[in-house]
Amino acid sequence: MTYCVGVRLDSGILFASDSRTNAGVDHIASFCKMKVFEMANERVIVVLSSGNLSITQSVINTLEQHRHADQAVPTIWNAANMYDVACIVGDALREIERRDGPYLAQGNIDASASLLVGGQIKGEDPRLFNIYPQGNFIEATPETHSFQLGEGKYGKPVLDRVVTTATNPVDAVKCVLVSFDSTIRSNISVGLPIDLLWYPRDSLRVGFQKRILEGDPYFNMLRNAWGAGLRRAFGELDNPDWVS
Amino acid sequence: MTYCVGVRLDSGILFASDSRTNAGVDHIASFCKMKVFEMANERVIVVLSSGNLSITQSVINTLEQHRHADQAVPTIWNAANMYDVACIVGDALREIERRDGPYLAQGNIDASASLLVGGQIKGEDPRLFNIYPQGNFIEATPETHSFQLGEGKYGKPVLDRVVTTATNPVDAVKCVLVSFDSTIRSNISVGLPIDLLWYPRDSLRVGFQKRILEGDPYFNMLRNAWGAGLRRAFGELDNPDWVS
Repeated sequence: MTYCVGVRLDSGILFASDSRTNAGVDHIASFCKMKVFEMANERVIVVLSSGNLSITQSVINTLEQHRHADQAVPTIWNAANMYDVACIVGDALREIERRDGPYLAQGNIDASASLLVGGQIKGEDPRLFNIYPQGNFIEATPETHSFQLGEGKYGKPVLDRVVTTATNPVDAVKCVLVSFDSTIRSNISVGLPIDLLWYPRDSLRVGFQKRILEGDPYFNMLRNAWGAGLRRAFGELDNPDWVS
Repeated sequence: MTYCVGVRLDSGILFASDSRTNAGVDHIASFCKMKVFEMANERVIVVLSSGNLSITQSVINTLEQHRHADQAVPTIWNAANMYDVACIVGDALREIERRDGPYLAQGNIDASASLLVGGQIKGEDPRLFNIYPQGNFIEATPETHSFQLGEGKYGKPVLDRVVTTATNPVDAVKCVLVSFDSTIRSNISVGLPIDLLWYPRDSLRVGFQKRILEGDPYFNMLRNAWGAGLRRAFGELDNPDWVS
């Protein structure tokens, strides 16, 4: 499986993805699930992917090859807005599903894939989309500012409790890392490294990118401090008077 | 869906279940998913259930009717140990699946059900079993002392972090309630009331039973205090030095 998060804050968009892929328990590998398409001062588009790796890699390749396409063809490089980008990514996904899906179905292999697509094109606000396996999609709003892909349930309670659109990027990074810790601790199909990317609103450049590897001192500190903080918060809860 | 938890501690077994059932989003109802079979000073057996309600109710009815069965027939009332109880519950589930399953399959209705069965029979230690939809089962051990049914992922991180077999029953109650809060907050298919039952080791009687209704003052306090404690724990985490 996979765990990916996109959070659209007032100040920009935070992206995070794990790197574990598995085809059965005896075929585990590490692949980056984050792809950045950047045209400095003009557009920054980030794609996070989950699902069948051969499908998502082909989608990313299709989008990359668009760089050399005729300018008359609509691509993520010339799209006027992020809505059109989401359509183009959804179309690429549908095209690959059409090409490979029937062959995978013959082997009873799940060919489905989902993507988060976010970023900013000059002239628009930053936007974030969740693209379903069928190629249709929804957009993040002020009420629902975060999307998750894959094993999202373990890490959802802390995101729901802590992050609002007004949260600053440092706190959002910490909260997303805590949510990865909760997921990794409870689910073996999600694993390090974690790729993080911060896109600051209206910058039209990647803010920072960070890859958190196994043994990363900050992530280790965070895991321990969060565990201790949880247990302290827990110890401060009053007891029920109906337990003898 | 459902959320049920069974935790086998050194000092006894804690059981908890939500009460929400739904057949589609427009057919939501409340049913108790906890059933107690008690023969004071001799045996206490608790069954928590999830899945198709008509199946689980029939399983519980079958087990209840065994009270009037010929003593030569193996039932949960005369079984010599909890392993045999788990076999009898699994057999009852298989029997109901055999009777109703094919008819539900005709309507593309999921007939599957899962149960947690725990308690103590005089002469044995307390034991806890997780019965799968196929009627086979596994038993809790010192390493894996808790089982969940249904929507377990939201509430698993806090259970994993806080509860060990040495945890006292009051802390276990608080942690289980926090895990219900995390689940209810993130998933609309799990809802109050929450049924709690504590079985104290070697007592051969139910310790306490508590039903937590909507608006319960202790549960409301716990939810708020836990949210505040989480945010405080979060605020105390050091910032990464790689975020500008």
